[in-house]
Formats: sequence, structure tokens, C-alpha cells
Amino acid sequence: MNTKRFFASDNNAPIHPKVMEALMSVNSGHTISYGDDVYTKETEELFKKVFETEEIDVFFVYNGTGANVVALQALMYPFNAVVCAKTAHINVDECGAPEKQTGCKLLAMETPDGKLTTDLIAKTLHAIGSQHHSQPRVVSITQSTEMGTLYTIEELKEICDFSHKNNLFVHLDGARIANAAAALKCNFADITWKAGIDALSFGGTKNGLMFGEAVIFFNPSLAANVPFIRKQSAQLHSKMRYISAQYKAYFENELWRSNALHANKMAAILSEKVSKISAIKLTQKVQVNSVFATIPKEWIEPLQNKSFFYVWDDEKSEVRWMTAFDTTEDDIEGFVKLIENANGY
Amino acid sequence: MNTKRFFASDNNAPIHPKVMEALMSVNSGHTISYGDDVYTKETEELFKKVFETEEIDVFFVYNGTGANVVALQALMYPFNAVVCAKTAHINVDECGAPEKQTGCKLLAMETPDGKLTTDLIAKTLHAIGSQHHSQPRVVSITQSTEMGTLYTIEELKEICDFSHKNNLFVHLDGARIANAAAALKCNFADITWKAGIDALSFGGTKNGLMFGEAVIFFNPSLAANVPFIRKQSAQLHSKMRYISAQYKAYFENELWRSNALHANKMAAILSEKVSKISAIKLTQKVQVNSVFATIPKEWIEPLQNKSFFYVWDDEKSEVRWMTAFDTTEDDIEGFVKLIENANGY
Amino acid sequence: MNTKRFFASDNNAPIHPKVMEALMSVNSGHTISYGDDVYTKETEELFKKVFETEEIDVFFVYNGTGANVVALQALMYPFNAVVCAKTAHINVDECGAPEKQTGCKLLAMETPDGKLTTDLIAKTLHAIGSQHHSQPRVVSITQSTEMGTLYTIEELKEICDFSHKNNLFVHLDGARIANAAAALKCNFADITWKAGIDALSFGGTKNGLMFGEAVIFFNPSLAANVPFIRKQSAQLHSKMRYISAQYKAYFENELWRSNALHANKMAAILSEKVSKISAIKLTQKVQVNSVFATIPKEWIEPLQNKSFFYVWDDEKSEVRWMTAFDTTEDDIEGFVKLIENANGY
Amino acid sequence: MNTKRFFASDNNAPIHPKVMEALMSVNSGHTISYGDDVYTKETEELFKKVFETEEIDVFFVYNGTGANVVALQALMYPFNAVVCAKTAHINVDECGAPEKQTGCKLLAMETPDGKLTTDLIAKTLHAIGSQHHSQPRVVSITQSTEMGTLYTIEELKEICDFSHKNNLFVHLDGARIANAAAALKCNFADITWKAGIDALSFGGTKNGLMFGEAVIFFNPSLAANVPFIRKQSAQLHSKMRYISAQYKAYFENELWRSNALHANKMAAILSEKVSKISAIKLTQKVQVNSVFATIPKEWIEPLQNKSFFYVWDDEKSEVRWMTAFDTTEDDIEGFVKLIENANGY
Repeated sequence: MNTKRFFASDNNAPIHPKVMEALMSVNSGHTISYGDDVYTKETEELFKKVFETEEIDVFFVYNGTGANVVALQALMYPFNAVVCAKTAHINVDECGAPEKQTGCKLLAMETPDGKLTTDLIAKTLHAIGSQHHSQPRVVSITQSTEMGTLYTIEELKEICDFSHKNNLFVHLDGARIANAAAALKCNFADITWKAGIDALSFGGTKNGLMFGEAVIFFNPSLAANVPFIRKQSAQLHSKMRYISAQYKAYFENELWRSNALHANKMAAILSEKVSKISAIKLTQKVQVNSVFATIPKEWIEPLQNKSFFYVWDDEKSEVRWMTAFDTTEDDIEGFVKLIENANGY
Repeated sequence: MNTKRFFASDNNAPIHPKVMEALMSVNSGHTISYGDDVYTKETEELFKKVFETEEIDVFFVYNGTGANVVALQALMYPFNAVVCAKTAHINVDECGAPEKQTGCKLLAMETPDGKLTTDLIAKTLHAIGSQHHSQPRVVSITQSTEMGTLYTIEELKEICDFSHKNNLFVHLDGARIANAAAALKCNFADITWKAGIDALSFGGTKNGLMFGEAVIFFNPSLAANVPFIRKQSAQLHSKMRYISAQYKAYFENELWRSNALHANKMAAILSEKVSKISAIKLTQKVQVNSVFATIPKEWIEPLQNKSFFYVWDDEKSEVRWMTAFDTTEDDIEGFVKLIENANGY
Repeated sequence: MNTKRFFASDNNAPIHPKVMEALMSVNSGHTISYGDDVYTKETEELFKKVFETEEIDVFFVYNGTGANVVALQALMYPFNAVVCAKTAHINVDECGAPEKQTGCKLLAMETPDGKLTTDLIAKTLHAIGSQHHSQPRVVSITQSTEMGTLYTIEELKEICDFSHKNNLFVHLDGARIANAAAALKCNFADITWKAGIDALSFGGTKNGLMFGEAVIFFNPSLAANVPFIRKQSAQLHSKMRYISAQYKAYFENELWRSNALHANKMAAILSEKVSKISAIKLTQKVQVNSVFATIPKEWIEPLQNKSFFYVWDDEKSEVRWMTAFDTTEDDIEGFVKLIENANGY
Repeated sequence: MNTKRFFASDNNAPIHPKVMEALMSVNSGHTISYGDDVYTKETEELFKKVFETEEIDVFFVYNGTGANVVALQALMYPFNAVVCAKTAHINVDECGAPEKQTGCKLLAMETPDGKLTTDLIAKTLHAIGSQHHSQPRVVSITQSTEMGTLYTIEELKEICDFSHKNNLFVHLDGARIANAAAALKCNFADITWKAGIDALSFGGTKNGLMFGEAVIFFNPSLAANVPFIRKQSAQLHSKMRYISAQYKAYFENELWRSNALHANKMAAILSEKVSKISAIKLTQKVQVNSVFATIPKEWIEPLQNKSFFYVWDDEKSEVRWMTAFDTTEDDIEGFVKLIENANGY
């Protein structure tokens, strides 16, 4: 029994027990594969309730990169471009999957906090209509961002309005959308279709699921080709009930929200404690479940050896600490103690 | 509790209880993601034992299509071609994923039984060296085939020898390799690297696992780029322990073999029984866990309504019945009774 | 001064003198590049006249493969499939360019004469709507075919009607459309849009031009994205006037027709003469400018050494002889004499 | 007869008369197509002389974008990345052709003058070896740059040395390499393989040719797959003699150099004259045949109407004026007069 927990990533955490139970509960008898089973139908209905709309098409895929490339393929042609923040997962953490699988260019904009703005988007629009240049067609934002920051609902609306006026779709990478909704004390609908989002990569793996994310479209015309795109992208699971069942558990009694609230709260506690250590400086607002901070370079390796985490920016000596649904206050206390003693290593 | 079982596909079956237990057994504490965890390291060692070689590189991916496209990308350039049977899964059941993801052409050869031969491969080699033509570089065969037939070990060797002499790699689509090894009463090694196979898509989902297949290379030089290819193909799972754990259970006491032997045996029984019905004609040898047969056209729909299965060839009125690790003799009896009564529908 | 002419291919011929004159005639002063010049505008107007319609969008590209891949990209998504004859240039002579550049699968059908039929197309339609299978969306036919045969206008109409009824576009590879129109004594319109063709690769290089083919759409909605597709496919020429000027000459006094008629006539004469040699058997109807024939295997090499040509099918000892706009009756007489003496080599 | 000349682009110029003569000189008789003709063989030999090496593989393609995508495909895998300047033609002027055709990511670095430095390259190397990130494999620089600036021979060597030490190939986009060699008073060899360049897009169209560029490799092992890559990229011309002949003329008596020297000289004169106009500020060094300058916004449109040119940066009111091999001092005088009078428009 592995009882160790650390602060490297929320995907280092296990599966929530309720999710495991759900997997067991569907584990008998035969069901049609590839999503034509009752469990999947039921879960699709659940998505409608949770998202407060009938205008929603849900496609399960395997992981976040899969969700992003399926969504992007559905929204544009290879001669198009995606506007995103330089820190976006699609830009730096997917080994070029978006370029290879869509054929498109990413127009990655420098930001201080991982958040796109309408000003930044506007900068990419000068060449619309000229055959020499990749044509911007999708704005892709991440909520919560890779820097642990949040778009307010108003900011989302502003970006969506501006984008739609400029003939751009808005895609939301929601790998941590639960953390965002929990932090903003709102529902998924409020930060997706109600704000104008067209397509969503809906993540659960970082918040207690085993595998399986969802690509969601809020406009049926965008979803028509997705079954084929998903299959050709090798993202169609055969034994679909095992993804569907997880989401059923995830939505029951808002497990997603309690998991996310807890992770967020743990990050708040961690950040509060480390911010009292004078050699440490927080570099981003702590709005969800990550803490970005600069720490003395010589502390890093000894600390990592005791409790692993990632260096975010080597030059700045900036690290990232993440909390998860299963992080405990004891874990934090232990980790903070390690840091406090780092001087002596 | 769903207790229904039918004969549509082995991927309609649930997860073997031992596999579910294995998933629960790793469900605590944090582990590094993306395959750097102890469970995955242990499982990789297990693969070496099971395959009786240290010269093996194992990469977990999500599904069979994912395994195939990752393997093929590793073996060739976009200007190359893959020689395969017309009935190959890569040719007819992956919505063009191989073409899109590798850029290559498939040279799909007509066969009576899903099996390539050296004669068929030879037919594709006339344009080697001419810049106008896609250059054959990989022979992809399926064991057991999509038609439920088997290559003997000698046939495999002959194909591999011929291919290597002609500067072609041999890829084995092993979505049902367990059924093949069980039927041939041999080990995986005997029908892979010992016969000359260069790369293998190793499947488990059709034989009792939940998700996760493996791409395997028997020559380290072929595997060097695969980590990047896998990630760019959106086939790298974060919480890898949940794939690794399944394979650990799969290999323990040769669960894979007992599952496959059982499924094969059930198909043998089913085929024996249906072959006694005069209106039914078997169209392929029953060597593993599928039964191909022509049946009166008017029987099909009423039968499907009672116990779903797929029509294989509409024109010929040919159907496919598959057994799985959990098929029972009672299931067969019940199904055969349905067929026998079909006359009356 | 090279005065040798042989029967290997119509693209072995030089440029028609009128075309060279046209190139010289535009060779002064500056013009806007990439097609915004007056010469190109004028030529686009000419196309409207020649094709007898205002509903035509013309995009110059570099070569036939370029024309084909630009056209196909405009007509479908990567999860689609193209139905074509097995002998189609897109299937066997473009080193997999269609697969790589469109991401699509080619469904290549066996034919005796290079001609698709509605029966053959119908065979590919069984899986429409199923996410597991590449979805047929384009029928691509060649006129005149790679086997030197012709579709009648009625056959074209039948294919187009059938295709449109089944939600398929029809693309015509017109690398030798001039030879076809000349042979059928009709205009381009009669064998393109009037018969129902949606998109056309319009060739000139094999009939007296230097470089530059055209992709043509007969429905503006299909053409909207083509400027971007062409540029991204590296098929947009900067000094466009040098392509436009050639087409101006090509259309003047129907140079295309007189060139093609001449080439066709030369093939007719050649075929008549060789068909009298008892060891030679014509294998295809001679309808345009190629002669396919089986000849004694031992004749081939000595003959090639004296006057080069291509072997079409090694096994059958089938060769292809082509005539061009500049072939003379003397050339034929000389070549036939070589053949007649082949016995003695 | 069009006698107008303007300052929009060097590709607005016509063909040099010597090049046209060369085209006519090869315009008789039949020759094998696709590069197996004597003219092409001779020209390939000429390249060896001009580049002062036997270690050179030359592949003719259609245009600069074609040259770049063929070169890049030969140098890397889809999971790789290309480091380039943000202003690079491959990054901003090819409608995403590099991304679509190679599958790779471009890592485009901000520069003041279009020139990469080893410091900028170094910034992209932190993630080498990590499967999550596109792996830099090629550095692509342009000589002369898109900003009309030059790398010194020493700077080229430094970049190549640094790149090779870091396992990166260096590709040179030489769309205007003639202007560079002329300005640096050196030979092509000095700024290519002698400096360490691995692959070269060798341009001629902007310096007096009609069509056809060359992809050149200085290491045979890099060139082995290029015939297939070129064909699959739709960049293989059939009537190759018409490209080869142009290059023969281009190299004779160093026509390339006299053309380039002239164009460069005209830019020097133009820049000298406009720099005396107080409302105009040069924004880049004038090292070859372009002049970048900021001019009063209200002058732009009236000036363009009289003599067309491109705005480079709308916000800064920066324009680009280019000279060509046929620009005359009279042309410049006339244009400068127009500018001087712009105040009055």
C-alpha cells in the first residue's frame, strides 16, 4: 500500500474511491461497444443536466491531448491558425500533436499569467484574407490556466464576444475546469456556453478519474464530423462503459466540486504557509490548485529528493507545487517543514 | 447487474475480476505519471520475462488503432507503403487513421482468409526505387486474423524471412494475439520475435482488460523515437499505473492464456453446434474465437433482435459470431436454440 | 539542336513554338505577382469563354499532382475516401501524395480499362455513416484514362448523376483532357460541368506547355478555401504571368485541339501499323494518344536502346507507346521499322 | 509591351533575356522527363563547379515554399521543431505549409533584424529529451534575411558550430542567396557548406528566373530520401530541362552575380536618396536589395496608387521597397520624385 503523497502534479494522485466503485458497478455482462451502450447514453443525458442545456454533444476520448486535437480538427482547416497563450498546454506540452494532427499553425502569445486578452488576439488578425498567411480561426484558452490563474466570467465573455465578432471560434481547454468552477463558485455552464465557449475539452483525470476526457460542442453543426475525427485520431474507446461510469460517479453529488474545492483549499493553505518563508516568492496568484514560486536554487534538488516536484523555469529558479483531491493538511505541514529545513541541506 | 451476454464481439465483454482487483490494488498514494512509476517499471520487467528476451521495448498506448499508428510511424516515412490484407483492421476499421497519421499508402491485397502470403507481398515490390511510387517498407499481418484464422509459426517465419530479404519490416497486429498463442499452444515469443516479427501491437482489451494496449519493438534501434511519436499521437497516458497494473494481472498465472483458451473453446463448441444446422455454412476455419457463417438472410434481423451480432457481408448473408473469456456453454446453448427456432420467426 | 523524338511519353516533348512566343511576349516590365496581374485576369476570362460558363473558378498550380491534391483537399475532410480506378495516376504515380496531403484513403477499384463504373462505385458505399470506416466523398476519374481509353459523355453523366445522388463529388483528372475532347469532337464544357463534373485538374503540360496546370471548380462554394489550400500546398507561383501567358496561347485558335488531334492521329497510325505485326497484340482500344501492346519480351531491351519507351506490365510483357503533338509520320515509320527488325536483334 | 517597373518586389520583375534564350535553346526534340535528361545532368555538374564541391545533391523543385518543405522533411521527423526568426518566410509567408507538410512545430524567435543568434537558439534547447515537447532538430536561417540584412560569414559559422554541437542541422533559406553572395563579395560555397550549412533552399526566381528553385544537400546521407519526398510533395517537374536550362544560363558568366549586384546597387541608391527626406526613417540596414522605412501614414495610399509597394507594418507605418535586376536609376529618380511630392497628395 503506497501511502506517499507529494506535490508534483494532480495527475500523480490515485482514483477517487467513488470512481473505482462506479467501475466495479458496471463490470458484468455484455454491452455494445464504442458508446452505443446504456451506460454511455445515460451519462450523455447527465451531461445535459449538469451543463443545463440540451444543445450539447459529448464525445469521450482518452486524454487531454486527444480532446484538444479532436476539438481543434472539428473547428478548422489545416490552413487555419489557433491563437493561444505561449504557456498553453497545446503549445508546449503536447509534443507538437496539434500541428501534426490538425496541420495548423499555433500563434502563441506571450502573457504574464497564462491568460489571453482581446488585445493579444487582435494582434493576430492583420492578415485575415491573405492567402500567404495561416488564417486565425480558433482562440484556445485554458481555464484554469497552466499558471494556476483564472479568467473571470466577464473576461470569458469579452473574449468570446470579440472572437465571434471576428469570425473566430473559442475553444476552452478544461483540463482543470472543475478547479475553476469550484473557485468561481459557479457551474460548468457559466464558464462555458453561457459565456460563449464553442467547444470544450472537459477533463476529469486530474480530479480523481482514471482515464477518459470529453470533447464537448455547444453547437450541433460543429459536432457533425466528430465521430469520424475521433476514430481517425485513435481516440474512440471500445469498452466505453468504463469511461461513462466514471463520469456518472463524478457528477453524482457533485463529486467533481468537492474534489476540486478540496484541492484548491490545500493550495491556498500551502501558499499561505510558504509565503511566510522569506526566501520564497510566489510568482502567480494562487487561484486554484497550484503554487508557483521562486525558491533558492540550491534548495531544489535536496527537496526534490525528499518529495518530488517540478522546476517550472530553471533560469528563474521557479518551481510549481500542485495539490490534489487527496492532499491532506498533514501532507502540507510535512512538506513545509521540509522546505523550512532546506537551508540546512 | 447486467447478466446478459451475446456473440457480437469480444470487446462487448466486461473486465476480468482479477484485472479489476489489480486496479484496486494500485489505487493509493501518489506516483509519478507518464510511466515513470514503479508499477510500470515492474510491468516492463514482466514483459521481458513473458517474451523471453531482454531485447524488448514496451510502450503502453490507449487502444489498438493507437498501437498500430504508433508502430507504423516508428517503422517508416510518409513516402512508404504498408502491405496488408484487404480485411486488415488497419485497412478497413480505423477510419483512415493509418493514412492520416503516417501519411503512407496501404497496399491492401485480396485474400480468401485474411492471411498474407509471400506471393502477395512479392506483387507489391516491382516499383522499389522509383520516385513515382510509394515505397513498400512494412508488411503488416494480423494474428489471429480478422477472419479468425491463424498463421502457423512456419508461415510467420516465411513471411518474415521474405520481408527482411526485401528490406521490409514486419509488423504484427496482435489485437487477439492471446487467442493465437493459446490456439497454437505456444508462447508469445514463438509467434513474434522468434519468428522474425519486428514490431507488435499487443492487445489485451479483447481478452479481459479495460483499456491500454502495448506497442512492442524487438530491436532497440526501432524504438528510439517512439516516446515522442506516442506523445504526438496523443497516446501517452498520465496515470500509467492503471494500465501497468492490468498487465501484471494479465500475465499472472497466464490469465491471458486461460481467458483465451476458454474463448477459443466456446467458439469451437458454437461452430460445432451451428454447423449441424443445414441452412448454415461456415465460411472460415474456426481456429480461435470467432465463427463466420452464411445464414438465411431472413433470419438475421429477428435473431439480432434477440441476441445482437454483426453482419459481416451483406451480399453473401455472412455473419460473424464471437465468443469471449466469459462466454458460457449455457450462453451457447441458448443462442443455438434461438437459431434453430429462427425458421419460425 | 536535339531533333530526336521517341514514344516514351507525351511529357518528353518540347514546348509548342506558339507557347514559347507567348512567354516572350509577356517578358517585360513589372507585374504584381501571385496572380494579381492583368495577364492572369485576362486568362481567367478566357477560361470562362472556353468553358462556356461564368460559374468557374480557376487556380493555376505547378503540375498534375499539385492540381490533384489541391482539388481533393478542397472537396473533402481527412476522414473521407476517394473512389478511383486502380490504375489512376493519383493511386499509382504520385508517391502517395494524395494520402499524405489530404490524409484520406483511396478506394482503388480493379478495372479492365482504367474506367470506373457506377457498379464499382456502389461497392464502396456500404459503410456510409459508420464511424469505423473512411467515408467515400469523392469519385475521381481520369479522362482520357491512364490506359488511353475514353469515357463517353453519357458514361460521364451516368457517373456524375449516380455520385451526386450518393452525396459524392466527382473530380476529373484531366491531365490529357485535350486529347479526350479532341477525340470526342466536343468542347471542354461537354465533358466537364455539362456532364456534372464538380472539380477538374486541367492539364496542358502533356500537350505542349512548359509548366503550370489549373485546378478548376464549377461551383463557387467549393472554391472558397482554395487560395489557402494552394498556398499551403506550395503550389502558388509568384511570377504567374508565365503560366497565364501559356494558356492564352493554348486557347488561341484552339491550339490545344490541333495539338491533341495530331497526337491522337499519330497514335492511330502507329497502332494500325503495329497491329499488323503478328507478334504484337494491342491490349487497349486506341482512343487517344497511347498504344498499349504486348510484344515479345526479348524485343524490349534492344528496342528501348534504340528508341526509349516504358514497359507497362513486366509480367505480361506489355508496353506503352505514346505520341505527342510533335510526333511525325516519319517518326512512326522509323519506329515501326525498328520493331519489324526487332526479330533480328 | 509593358515598360512599367515599380518597387513592390523582386518577383514582380520579368525573366532575364539570357534565361529566356536558354529556354528557347533547349526547345526541340524529345528528352526523358523528371530529370533524367542530359540538360539536367549537365546542370547538376555545373552546380558542383559553382559550389566548389562534389559532395552536393541538387533537387529541382517549383518554388521557395516547395524547396523549404522538401528540405525540412528531409532533415527531421514530425515530432521535431525548427528554430527560426519570427520574420522567417517559413513562419509568416507560407500559409502554414511547413507545419502541415512536416507535422513539426516552428519555434519562432523575436529578433530586431531578422537574424537568429546562438543565444536565441540556446533558449529553445531546455526540453531536449523530454517526450512532452517538440524536439528542436533544425535551425533555419535566411540569407539575406527577410529584413534585407546579412549574416557575416563568421556569424554563419558560429551558428552552424553551435547547432552541430547541439545535434541540430542548419537549413539556409536562400531565396535571395545571390544578393547575399554579391553583397559579401564571396561565392555560394563560402556562405553555405564552408560555413557549415547542411541544407539549402537555393532560389533564382527573385533574381531573373521564371520558375524552379533547388534544394541542395551537402551531405549525401541527408539526400537519400529526397526523390520520394519531392515527388510526394508535388514538387517534381516533368519537363525538367526547362528548369535546368535556366540555371545553366544563371551560372554562365555569373549572371546571378551581375543581376544581384545591380539590384543591390539600386537599393543602395534608393536608400541614400530617401534617407535625405526628413519624414522618412530607414528601419533596417540596407545590405542587399530592399529598403525598409517608416513614412508618414497619409503618404502611403496615394503613393501606392502611383507606384505599388507593400506596407510591412501597419502600426508603425513601415513600408518595404525592393529593387530588382532590371531596376534603373531612372526608375529610382522617378519614384523618389513621387515621394518628395507626396506631401502634396
